Amino acid sequence: MIKFNTRSFVRYVHVYQAKKLSKGVIESAATHDLLQWLGFVKQTQSGLVHWLPMGLRTLNKITHVIKYRMNTYGRAHEVSLSTLSPRALWLRTGRWGNSELFKLKDSKGAEYCLAPTCEEEITSLIGAYVSSYKDLPLLAYQVTRKYRDERRPRGGLLRGREFLMKDGYSFDVTKESAIETFNRMNKCYDLIFQDLRVPFVSAWADSGDIGGDMSKEYHYLHETGEDVLMKCTSCESVSNVETCNSYPVKEGEHGGDVDVRYALNKERDTLLCLYYPKGRTLNWNHVKGIMDDDIDLALRETSNDKILEIFSEKYPEDEAMFASVIRVMDCRLNSHSNFPDFPLKQYLKSNFAQLTGESLVDAVHQEICGECKEGSLEAAKSIEVGHTFYLGTKYSERLDGKFMTKDNNEQLMEMGCYGIGVSRLVGAIAQVTRDEKGLRWPKSSAPYEISLCAAQFDSKVEEARDLLSSHADELWIDARDKVSLGRKISQSHCLGIPLCVIVGNKHWPHVEIEVRGRRVSDQWHAKYNQLAQEYQWTMLPASNDAFEKHRVHKNHLSDVAAILLTDM
Amino acid sequence: MIKFNTRSFVRYVHVYQAKKLSKGVIESAATHDLLQWLGFVKQTQSGLVHWLPMGLRTLNKITHVIKYRMNTYGRAHEVSLSTLSPRALWLRTGRWGNSELFKLKDSKGAEYCLAPTCEEEITSLIGAYVSSYKDLPLLAYQVTRKYRDERRPRGGLLRGREFLMKDGYSFDVTKESAIETFNRMNKCYDLIFQDLRVPFVSAWADSGDIGGDMSKEYHYLHETGEDVLMKCTSCESVSNVETCNSYPVKEGEHGGDVDVRYALNKERDTLLCLYYPKGRTLNWNHVKGIMDDDIDLALRETSNDKILEIFSEKYPEDEAMFASVIRVMDCRLNSHSNFPDFPLKQYLKSNFAQLTGESLVDAVHQEICGECKEGSLEAAKSIEVGHTFYLGTKYSERLDGKFMTKDNNEQLMEMGCYGIGVSRLVGAIAQVTRDEKGLRWPKSSAPYEISLCAAQFDSKVEEARDLLSSHADELWIDARDKVSLGRKISQSHCLGIPLCVIVGNKHWPHVEIEVRGRRVSDQWHAKYNQLAQEYQWTMLPASNDAFEKHRVHKNHLSDVAAILLTDM
Repeated sequence: MIKFNTRSFVRYVHVYQAKKLSKGVIESAATHDLLQWLGFVKQTQSGLVHWLPMGLRTLNKITHVIKYRMNTYGRAHEVSLSTLSPRALWLRTGRWGNSELFKLKDSKGAEYCLAPTCEEEITSLIGAYVSSYKDLPLLAYQVTRKYRDERRPRGGLLRGREFLMKDGYSFDVTKESAIETFNRMNKCYDLIFQDLRVPFVSAWADSGDIGGDMSKEYHYLHETGEDVLMKCTSCESVSNVETCNSYPVKEGEHGGDVDVRYALNKERDTLLCLYYPKGRTLNWNHVKGIMDDDIDLALRETSNDKILEIFSEKYPEDEAMFASVIRVMDCRLNSHSNFPDFPLKQYLKSNFAQLTGESLVDAVHQEICGECKEGSLEAAKSIEVGHTFYLGTKYSERLDGKFMTKDNNEQLMEMGCYGIGVSRLVGAIAQVTRDEKGLRWPKSSAPYEISLCAAQFDSKVEEARDLLSSHADELWIDARDKVSLGRKISQSHCLGIPLCVIVGNKHWPHVEIEVRGRRVSDQWHAKYNQLAQEYQWTMLPASNDAFEKHRVHKNHLSDVAAILLTDM
Repeated sequence: MIKFNTRSFVRYVHVYQAKKLSKGVIESAATHDLLQWLGFVKQTQSGLVHWLPMGLRTLNKITHVIKYRMNTYGRAHEVSLSTLSPRALWLRTGRWGNSELFKLKDSKGAEYCLAPTCEEEITSLIGAYVSSYKDLPLLAYQVTRKYRDERRPRGGLLRGREFLMKDGYSFDVTKESAIETFNRMNKCYDLIFQDLRVPFVSAWADSGDIGGDMSKEYHYLHETGEDVLMKCTSCESVSNVETCNSYPVKEGEHGGDVDVRYALNKERDTLLCLYYPKGRTLNWNHVKGIMDDDIDLALRETSNDKILEIFSEKYPEDEAMFASVIRVMDCRLNSHSNFPDFPLKQYLKSNFAQLTGESLVDAVHQEICGECKEGSLEAAKSIEVGHTFYLGTKYSERLDGKFMTKDNNEQLMEMGCYGIGVSRLVGAIAQVTRDEKGLRWPKSSAPYEISLCAAQFDSKVEEARDLLSSHADELWIDARDKVSLGRKISQSHCLGIPLCVIVGNKHWPHVEIEVRGRRVSDQWHAKYNQLAQEYQWTMLPASNDAFEKHRVHKNHLSDVAAILLTDM
């Protein structure tokens, strides 16, 4: 419990006053600015913040929720790995070249990166401890700062260069048990995100550069999100647009202009010509699937002309006509579509393959779901807050992560990895729960659950504080002189504290409770019906644009606060 | 509560078995090796470790003790500052040149260091929030990883290149209130180190490069320590040998060879000749004090010849005889001492000053205390675990840390800073409390307070576990198959867990408790006399070299464990 006073370092009130945070200003402010004005964080450089007391409390509470579920349902062991990770490990996995690694040298010239994620270190660590199948499965996790030299850090906490991340790693004997673990961790994530009390969706996703072939993302739907999710109205599957397969309402419906993108197989001896409707976005995950992974994705950013140039080097002038070509037609095209000219002058029809009926582009709103082939897809923008991967043996192979099987054979560990952006969650929860009056935290991430506001700090405030002793760790007291009670209350609401307890002379020994928190259930109401009389508890009719208000005898304040918080 | 099983990632038992940690091996092992063998940490590179579950628990428990006192008695606000600190800030304080800074560049070429301490960042942060004297005093602290590119990292956790540090900073209006805060923080440190239950001493100390002119260190006395403390048998003052003033038992007792060290004042126009007994160590803090700070300490590592060369440049040939010289004689010398030749050929006696009766060298065992000038000094080696500084305006001046006084004048904030090496404490506590049987943690830093050992995991173990539910967070269960009960018990003791509860068939429903923890008080005994009969609690006579053992009815196990732990 902290008594707010003017000596408090989080001088949000002064800032608040200085900025004259009128309703209009709050309403139109970016969430990251609100978090700064209200003393949660202070941005020091692009993508870097200092955590101030208020924000650190929120960060720690979210961390606590995550650790609790990881330790219990997740049965994971908590570790804390060194941030300085030596070059040699990253060379083995081929990730040293990643341009987003922060790198440094020590005084002896040894090179390190600041770990952005810890597959290298953990595989090497676990490999040193595990010798037998009896040691598996096992799961380790940590909550530590990670580093990524983002070229364009933005959105404040949503995309930082230094961020707090929960990263977990699993090690199993077989692919089957690894997938069991992957599924269990996804259930663990469901519990974590339920505990955080912000509606979320999980979606099948692209594994990206991490590798592996099963991957799930956790998202908050929000119109400011950078991701796009597609949800089927029939089978209800949700996936990131990066992996969402879709079909047009009518095959061959596109009779207009056609775009082409050239690509090469891994051997670079076969030209892929990818045709799709002009104006749509080619989806490389789909192409990869269609080609059974035989495509050189390193050339993804390479221009069509350059692709043709590389390809032509494979076939000297006199062999050009033997060049192998695969043409892939998006299923939205038809024979009347307006195709571009074919790039090769001479060719043998027998070296040509043609694939039709495939979907090559990102799904769009209202197309047909590629999973059930029945429902229609709905698009929604979202903020990604967690990601799980089944990794297979990608890292154990490169880092020698082996164990002895029951039959005394050496075998590679099957891995999974599981991330949650903890500091990102602070920004994301603030963003999706805030309203025109300011922040509005769920109980589990609120810096304090209860604020105690009074005109000044007198014996009544002391008594109310003592009566709330079972909430002491979650109590914020604002009884400054020279600030009006009305301002204190509106500042409590702007900070997003779920309950504001108001102590005044008029109704004492009754106190008032204003409700700022959003309800996720309505259990309080049954309790109210049952206990109102005994507790001298009345709910006051709220005027327009005002907050729900309760009045209760001080002796029952603590119980009523607990009942109201149950639903937040 | 964690059930120990062979799938546990901390496979300390396997390691333990592999190393055949017989009594002799444990006894002679370095503490850092023990910490690694027992699964507390794993060293990855010189000065870098991964924290494993067992060690992380100890680290977190120590952190908790520190935060509790900082939040309550310390009235400090917890923050968490970015580790990446930009070059510009460090240029302003002149600390960018520090050769132990880890430095790196981002993709845009901006330079950062990994903060080894946060005076720069916090002064700049607080300066941005504080505008008036009304905002002061205030105190902020954090527990975060710090970085120092030590040339010779050693002693495992005692001197790492990445380490967890609690660093606190205070800001006051006047020097008087800053010193009040400094004194209060020293009391707060006393409470913290009392809570950790390892005997400690606080000693006046040298401020070193941090700056400021009052400074206190917190030490654990231990023969492996790198520091030397001097304690007066009379006035009981304790100080680091770096600042301890001493006098010889008899003035002028040294009639033998004399060493000389040359130095220059800040203007470099006066030569200081420091004479002291050969074989003793010159103490620059004493010299600084004698010279009222007018000495150029940048030349501390410069040879005598080079000093004379620099000095002679100030005085061209024809002015040499006007050179200003101060000779300082250590009080241990006498006129019969064997002085070296004087370096200057020509000089005017009138430009000569001579100081005698000063103490120029490090104190040694059994000299006279410089404080009370009566007692005799006792030397003891020690490990430094905390340091407090009154800083004055050194940082606020360079970083523009100003506020408006009551009279509307701009004034610099008066600062203090307060460090505790949290990861260092893990190594230090392990070192000073261990014995020939392994680690032996005080309750407040033990990874678990109680281990529950049984031949196998059966319904009795389950019952005992449930009966210990109020200790659930501090309970470690070892009921593996195929490992003898005796080995489990000795492993619990080697891990240093204070109480080992043994569940067996023979005495059930009574269980046994072996005491590994060291007692800091004896409250348990009165309770024992009072409750033994009611609790069916008997203390068993211990055989030679065995641990104190109790037997108690299972229904009172939890209470008796709590009573025994009170004293540890």
